Amino acid sequence: MHSSAQRDFIVAHHHQRILVVIGSHHQAARENSDPAFQDAHIYVHLKAVYILTLKKGGGKGHDRRIGAAQKLFHEIGSKGKAPALSSLASGKVMDQVMTRKPHEMLAATLSQELDAVNVLIRTRMASQHAPRIPEVTAHLVEAGGKRLRPMLTLAAARMCGYEGDHHLKLAATVEFIHTATLLHDDVVDESAQRRGRPTANLLWDNKSSVLVGDYLFARSFQLMVETGSLRVLDILANASATIAEGEVLQMTAASNLKTGEDIYLQVVRGKTAALFSAATEVGGVIAGASEAQVKALFDYGDALGIAFQIADDLLDYQGDSKATGKNVGDDFRERKLTLPVIKAVAQATDEERAFWTRTIEKGKQEDDDLEQALALMAKYGTLEATREDANAWAAKAKAALDALPDHEIRSMLRDLADYVVSRLN
Amino acid sequence: MHSSAQRDFIVAHHHQRILVVIGSHHQAARENSDPAFQDAHIYVHLKAVYILTLKKGGGKGHDRRIGAAQKLFHEIGSKGKAPALSSLASGKVMDQVMTRKPHEMLAATLSQELDAVNVLIRTRMASQHAPRIPEVTAHLVEAGGKRLRPMLTLAAARMCGYEGDHHLKLAATVEFIHTATLLHDDVVDESAQRRGRPTANLLWDNKSSVLVGDYLFARSFQLMVETGSLRVLDILANASATIAEGEVLQMTAASNLKTGEDIYLQVVRGKTAALFSAATEVGGVIAGASEAQVKALFDYGDALGIAFQIADDLLDYQGDSKATGKNVGDDFRERKLTLPVIKAVAQATDEERAFWTRTIEKGKQEDDDLEQALALMAKYGTLEATREDANAWAAKAKAALDALPDHEIRSMLRDLADYVVSRLN
Repeated sequence: MHSSAQRDFIVAHHHQRILVVIGSHHQAARENSDPAFQDAHIYVHLKAVYILTLKKGGGKGHDRRIGAAQKLFHEIGSKGKAPALSSLASGKVMDQVMTRKPHEMLAATLSQELDAVNVLIRTRMASQHAPRIPEVTAHLVEAGGKRLRPMLTLAAARMCGYEGDHHLKLAATVEFIHTATLLHDDVVDESAQRRGRPTANLLWDNKSSVLVGDYLFARSFQLMVETGSLRVLDILANASATIAEGEVLQMTAASNLKTGEDIYLQVVRGKTAALFSAATEVGGVIAGASEAQVKALFDYGDALGIAFQIADDLLDYQGDSKATGKNVGDDFRERKLTLPVIKAVAQATDEERAFWTRTIEKGKQEDDDLEQALALMAKYGTLEATREDANAWAAKAKAALDALPDHEIRSMLRDLADYVVSRLN
Repeated sequence: MHSSAQRDFIVAHHHQRILVVIGSHHQAARENSDPAFQDAHIYVHLKAVYILTLKKGGGKGHDRRIGAAQKLFHEIGSKGKAPALSSLASGKVMDQVMTRKPHEMLAATLSQELDAVNVLIRTRMASQHAPRIPEVTAHLVEAGGKRLRPMLTLAAARMCGYEGDHHLKLAATVEFIHTATLLHDDVVDESAQRRGRPTANLLWDNKSSVLVGDYLFARSFQLMVETGSLRVLDILANASATIAEGEVLQMTAASNLKTGEDIYLQVVRGKTAALFSAATEVGGVIAGASEAQVKALFDYGDALGIAFQIADDLLDYQGDSKATGKNVGDDFRERKLTLPVIKAVAQATDEERAFWTRTIEKGKQEDDDLEQALALMAKYGTLEATREDANAWAAKAKAALDALPDHEIRSMLRDLADYVVSRLN
């Protein structure tokens, strides 16, 4: 029984941005909504608020509607994305659209479980004896990470019908591993910024980053042991080894022109995909999903992670520095070979190869080198080719979902795969 | 049927240094020996070689005896401890005594299993994709570590009658954790020396130390999962957390005069005792030992580790720098509060307290400060008091062994507890 409003929702939902524009003539929009919002023609679905066309003037109940809208906007905390409240207050016709990204949809759907995971994270991060630990980690854990990895675990478990609470522990495990990896990366890269804040290692020191990272690894280990599932432990142990191996590999391969796409893929698996695929896989395992489903979950996480990382590497060369918080060409300046350059090196003339050798291998860079690098990438169309690769991995991720139960979360995971590459298209 | 030679052996055995001096008149000494050595009056016990009194002159079979002795000295590889072969070759009367320390006795007794552990370590350390990994770790793993921790696991399992091979994996696990911790410590302490060689972090960089350490943690995790014992995983997860927490605690507590003996003990447990006690405990668990025995094994490892670390901290102030490879007072210069200073601070006058505040908390040290620090420790007898503490922990370790089966390994573990404090007495 699809009302037209619901159809609007579904259609929009498949175009990556969830636009639900509900006019006052869509009676069906009111069906499952809170009466206060119904009256304001605000359609509430999965705690996400979509849109609303407020009639001019307002009439009876206008103030109440404004109040409800304000409260809701406040609750969902969509910083910078809510329609200006002054527009609402003026009673002006609004066709502004609030959109939620797929990971925000997932967060809304899984909000209760995510809250429980956050409590678990805070509890387990605490150390009776070493107050430095929460000091360092709170900095990261509170810094507004998207909690993408724990959400994948929760989503996989829920989609496979899990009803216990071990998935909460696994979600916290995955976030701890991720945070620990960030802390250790901060030491390694001597990076000055992480999630828009100074890194822990600048605020404190290498000591804190290394040791608190180790502490989080140990805590994650305790959490996963508590699930009592040897299979889960096996998956996470293997993922940990892939992650560490990938990081070491990156260190030696990053500035070596011999690094081909195969090595790049291994590095990407280590850096990103191994934790994504472990996150989804353990969600299925803990839910007792079939082998085919567990494999599909692994494949989804793996392909999603690869698409995500390729997109990230591509954005380094073509991104909007305001949106990404990074400067164009950071990887080039840091002499990190990523896919767009690897593809250009593979087709380079002798002279071009000499350029890459000088700038990447030897690190002797001059002012115009980034421009020249971009020109060479343009010459061989490697940014486009890289984008196609990212899209292919996203498509692979979506295809893997076919083996999984038809579930609202499955749609969101499909959208998520589109979303990670949508930044490129 | 104790021959006098055997009695010599037993008596000496209880005095921490195993001295077996067997004269040519001790016929009993020959009973279980290789004929070539019998003839040379070399008594071989548990692959350890003890003494020999070569008669002047030599006579028939002299060359063969020399050859056998040379071969044996070579095999046991007691660098710097074998009698000069030229003395042997000259046929001079020898009363030089070769002694084996308890951990060497254990190594000899467990040599086959230790060999298997070494093979496992080398195999699991290898990385198909990241050759940097064995480069970094070989440096540490080959650097002649005593393999004390894996030996504790093997010893506990053997003593409890274990006949499988999971203890090999656990022994390798424990060594990997230890090595990873050393790598991370090298970053942390910016120490220039480790086991007498330049640290990995000077040879390579912080990157390698952090990431290869993470890789070893991941490998250790895979190995322990392979044993399929959730209880073992639980023990090692808890030990990992204690280790990491202790390291962080040390970082914040080390230069803080408020640090008392209780905090010191927690740091010591994290730094040393937690891995010792986990090593012995998992050996018992994998062998299916009784709860009382498992607890005794934990208590032994815990007390041994504490005795070991207190002894180490004491030697920093009273050691022979040639033997320890450290300079007297390194901890003082590095502003690390250890037990001898903590005890002196606890009894300090106002003026003395000001001295400790300046030198340890503020780190403003002058030329004569170490001398003054040693004088204050002498004033309150804190080196003696610390030695007594170490002895008490060693005694506790030995007492714990009473609950374990009467076994040759149990005697060696008892000797080992004596040995760790014998350096002090």
